[in-house]
Amino acid sequence: MRGAVIHAPGDVRFETLDDPQILKPTDAIIRTAVTCVCGSDLWPWRGLDATEAAHPMGHEYVGFVEEVGAEVTAVRPGQFVVGSFATSDNTCANCRNGWQSNCLNREFMSTCQAEYVRVPNAQGTLVATDEHPAEESWPGLLAVSDVMGTGWYAADAAEVRPGSTAVVVGDGAVGLCAVIAAKEMGAERIIAMSRHESRQRLALEFGATDIVTERGEDGVARIKEMTGGIGADSVLECVGTAQATQQALHSARPGGYVGFVGVPHEVAIDGKELFFSHVGLRGGPAPVRRYLPDLIGRVLTGRINPGKVFDLTLPLAQVAEGYQAMDERRAIKTLLKP
Amino acid sequence: MRGAVIHAPGDVRFETLDDPQILKPTDAIIRTAVTCVCGSDLWPWRGLDATEAAHPMGHEYVGFVEEVGAEVTAVRPGQFVVGSFATSDNTCANCRNGWQSNCLNREFMSTCQAEYVRVPNAQGTLVATDEHPAEESWPGLLAVSDVMGTGWYAADAAEVRPGSTAVVVGDGAVGLCAVIAAKEMGAERIIAMSRHESRQRLALEFGATDIVTERGEDGVARIKEMTGGIGADSVLECVGTAQATQQALHSARPGGYVGFVGVPHEVAIDGKELFFSHVGLRGGPAPVRRYLPDLIGRVLTGRINPGKVFDLTLPLAQVAEGYQAMDERRAIKTLLKP
Repeated sequence: MRGAVIHAPGDVRFETLDDPQILKPTDAIIRTAVTCVCGSDLWPWRGLDATEAAHPMGHEYVGFVEEVGAEVTAVRPGQFVVGSFATSDNTCANCRNGWQSNCLNREFMSTCQAEYVRVPNAQGTLVATDEHPAEESWPGLLAVSDVMGTGWYAADAAEVRPGSTAVVVGDGAVGLCAVIAAKEMGAERIIAMSRHESRQRLALEFGATDIVTERGEDGVARIKEMTGGIGADSVLECVGTAQATQQALHSARPGGYVGFVGVPHEVAIDGKELFFSHVGLRGGPAPVRRYLPDLIGRVLTGRINPGKVFDLTLPLAQVAEGYQAMDERRAIKTLLKP
Repeated sequence: MRGAVIHAPGDVRFETLDDPQILKPTDAIIRTAVTCVCGSDLWPWRGLDATEAAHPMGHEYVGFVEEVGAEVTAVRPGQFVVGSFATSDNTCANCRNGWQSNCLNREFMSTCQAEYVRVPNAQGTLVATDEHPAEESWPGLLAVSDVMGTGWYAADAAEVRPGSTAVVVGDGAVGLCAVIAAKEMGAERIIAMSRHESRQRLALEFGATDIVTERGEDGVARIKEMTGGIGADSVLECVGTAQATQQALHSARPGGYVGFVGVPHEVAIDGKELFFSHVGLRGGPAPVRRYLPDLIGRVLTGRINPGKVFDLTLPLAQVAEGYQAMDERRAIKTLLKP
């Protein structure tokens, strides 16, 4: 089969690779329907995360089950399945508590920009749709496997409630999906912080009521102005830089919440400052599995359409251009078709 | 009148001071019934917080109203009142949200180890009892004004729920009161981390089900052992050092909560570590005013007896000995009688 391999910053190649095999009785092999490039894939692309040795890329996938290990009974060959970037047995103590992305047997997906993919912990990870969904639903379901599930968690961790005010920091695919989530959870006011016109448009289409273009402390000042001087009930941090984290923390009102889902890069939080802010904080890799059945339903009924974050579609063979377009902000998110 | 003044580390004197006066129409003057020394008072006593110029000390108080400003109608001279170390108008946006310790007009109390005290924002801060409480209730009501209210907030911020497992880091007066709070909120298992026998005894009397004497990562390992390998649902951090904060964060299970109420001293939280832990975190000066009516009721009905944290009672004139005894851990908390 063929798939993407990163060799160095800016060097992602479409190569012939060994076909994945069932290694454990809890594995499944799927044939990729569609996959994509994640904002977090840009960290090694940009050299901000080190690439010590060449390795496959990709952690987002939907597809058709090809083969299952002996212990996998929840899905069967031929079914269309949605999973999560973090695999989970869905039976351990953390899974039972709803934190499948902290499963005691977790393995992160990492080879999904390929024609076939091995999914560990398939029994607890994969959710099959009742029937094969129409191809126009695939992008939405693919979004659910990562960015939509992550945006949902951001809103959940930030305790968005009906009637509340939510601020979304970050206008990438996750931030845009976080707008969808905040709207679905009933936020009355959703302020998207974005300075890119195409992303602003999508944010408004997804349910944002206001756009703030200022960043950093200027952005915080605007949020304060818009929220009676005290800040927002919920802030959804979808970037992961130190600046975005500070912006998020300073934009929340005393007693408010920050949900942070951008993987933190060199972020240190001052204990005393957090203390006196009275802001509640929770982050992490989203427990997408917890939300999958609900989110798959919302996509298939057309209630939400997170697939719109894909504004560039390429053949999988052109995966490198998919990275490049996102790096240069020519695309929000690149869909890849095997 | 006379009161305590700190001049330098280890140098607290009982001195003649000007009688406090009504400075604003929202002030009240109270005659102190009892006051006390706080664990946080030990920071300047030990020289860990700088004392640039001599100043009065103390932020815990219960007493009798002597005089009120023109705008104060909620309490009247002669009443017995309980307040909070953070004054609040109880009408601003933060107060209405329940975060009175972040009142937009907040002033922290700082002169309470004295015979008379000026209370700013008296209207929103002071709660009068229906009648003069018996003198044996005074220590419990005094505890409510700070340590009991703070322990309650720790449990609240850590989202202690019926049937859950709570860990209390810190065996000072706040930690011991946090045990009371966790029990009142229905925790099934309450693990007190303490290595001092007298404090262990009180923790058990207050409702702790287990004592862990190990500290740091050894303590964390013990907690993991006791919680099926994953950590506790709720951790109540009642110290404020970097070590205690790490211990608290590492003791919580994925998806659990840390409520941190010890004022952080040189605490930096690593963003990536917090992220991957999935732990929710909230701290701050306790919004005691939110809890006052409830907690006063629990003390006056005898349901809780947080006054037991006072294991040394001295005349106010011996305030310096009160500090010294706490510093040397001869006393958990010193009650001072004017």
